[in-house]
Amino acid sequence: MRIFNSIHSLRGAIKILKSRKKRIGFVPTMGALHRGHGSLFLRSRRENDITVVSIFVNPKQFGLREDFDAYPRPEKSDILLAKKEMVDIIFYPSENEMYRTGFLTSVQVDTISQILCGKSRPGHFRGVTTVVNKLLNIVAPDVLYLGQKDTQQAVLIKRMIADLNIPVTVRICPIVRERDGLALSSRNCYLSARQRLEAPILYRALQNAKQKALEGEHRSLHLGRFIRSTIARQSSGKIDYIACVDADTLAPLRRLRGKIMIALAVKFGKTRLIDNIVFSL
Amino acid sequence: MRIFNSIHSLRGAIKILKSRKKRIGFVPTMGALHRGHGSLFLRSRRENDITVVSIFVNPKQFGLREDFDAYPRPEKSDILLAKKEMVDIIFYPSENEMYRTGFLTSVQVDTISQILCGKSRPGHFRGVTTVVNKLLNIVAPDVLYLGQKDTQQAVLIKRMIADLNIPVTVRICPIVRERDGLALSSRNCYLSARQRLEAPILYRALQNAKQKALEGEHRSLHLGRFIRSTIARQSSGKIDYIACVDADTLAPLRRLRGKIMIALAVKFGKTRLIDNIVFSL
Repeated sequence: MRIFNSIHSLRGAIKILKSRKKRIGFVPTMGALHRGHGSLFLRSRRENDITVVSIFVNPKQFGLREDFDAYPRPEKSDILLAKKEMVDIIFYPSENEMYRTGFLTSVQVDTISQILCGKSRPGHFRGVTTVVNKLLNIVAPDVLYLGQKDTQQAVLIKRMIADLNIPVTVRICPIVRERDGLALSSRNCYLSARQRLEAPILYRALQNAKQKALEGEHRSLHLGRFIRSTIARQSSGKIDYIACVDADTLAPLRRLRGKIMIALAVKFGKTRLIDNIVFSL
Repeated sequence: MRIFNSIHSLRGAIKILKSRKKRIGFVPTMGALHRGHGSLFLRSRRENDITVVSIFVNPKQFGLREDFDAYPRPEKSDILLAKKEMVDIIFYPSENEMYRTGFLTSVQVDTISQILCGKSRPGHFRGVTTVVNKLLNIVAPDVLYLGQKDTQQAVLIKRMIADLNIPVTVRICPIVRERDGLALSSRNCYLSARQRLEAPILYRALQNAKQKALEGEHRSLHLGRFIRSTIARQSSGKIDYIACVDADTLAPLRRLRGKIMIALAVKFGKTRLIDNIVFSL
């Protein structure tokens, strides 16, 4: 496994790989790697000759009062995990390498960046689309792997790639969960023991709502209320949002039909967790 | 010369050229081609194996009350001129080919897109950087050729390319002028006979201001006043702005030093002309 800190040297390596017709898979991450990331690495390894993983805690996608400084950066264990997963190349740039003095450019996807998580995290998704745009220009992969857990991020990045004609294929990979159903997240480590015990309620509530929908309850309002009361009754979580949307466009649905996603964000203390479930009616 | 209307077919052709190691030069235009564009085509031909020219009147860079509908679209003579200049590939997409239903993404360079021309044309430069970003992803050229006449556009595009790590080299080519000094522009055709006679005052005023600066007048305010009164005395032109700025960053200069640009925009009737002069002190 090779580790690059500079854009220039990574590009040199990529150029050689491309000249040898190697197919490149790319997984952008903020580090604090877990089995969720691991599932993306594995999928990329299966489908490509070379797997590139970036590790960059991107300051532009954190709000002023968010956890940029506190965000976990376990460099050594990240590198060990990537090695174990047989990643070929790690791109590990500094903040200064990514954002030089005089940096002024942003890439924005309108409307769908302002809803759901975008509502409580203004500017967050502009930071995400900007850094992913840069990374795609640097790595020039054939395939980009994203996780279904950050579903709005995945929809926005797919939109950006289509709109700006970026020559890359996108694969969205399923959420990886703990045995009790909690979606894996680098932020789960913030949870207290008690919060950790409560947190699986998010997925249970989503599963129960899906069941209700399959049994005939197609009114978003009622499903939302049901999830809200389930979580309120059985945990200390404070709900940020619960939304029934079209899984491809994120357009809000008053009545469920087609390919549906129910997504939610819930705060346990200062820790904001997100989860979602996708199904068809 | 080959003409492509679809992104998909152009990409196929580019892919074959790249596999043959052809070096590609690219000139994005809005058509209504003149000798100014011709000078970019010539430079690209000299420096590359293949020259690609796009012709696309980009609706996103026109304001609501601007001349999008009236903008000249002389398709036949454009194609003749490109052929004469030995352009290899013309990319001539429709509006729908470039902006599909559901298009939501924009690329923006902050601060320097808001000054000078950006001040009187809100949203204009966001439209420019967005479409050029798309075109660079579609054409994937080795070298991009831009004209010094649209100097702010050139600075913004260079900034975007550096900030987003787009793998392309940029060359800025000198302004081409009529014999009487008027900078070539697709909008010159809008001028009445009388306005056409008056318009060369722009360049004469810039040249005289440069002369004054070389002789020791380094105060922007005074040079601006001098240009303003020259134009007011000798023409019917209404001044939009006159600015003394750093030629590389567009930062306003109170006192001239280093590499300087004096830029201006002046309206003759409804026709807005721009011009600039660059020199060092």
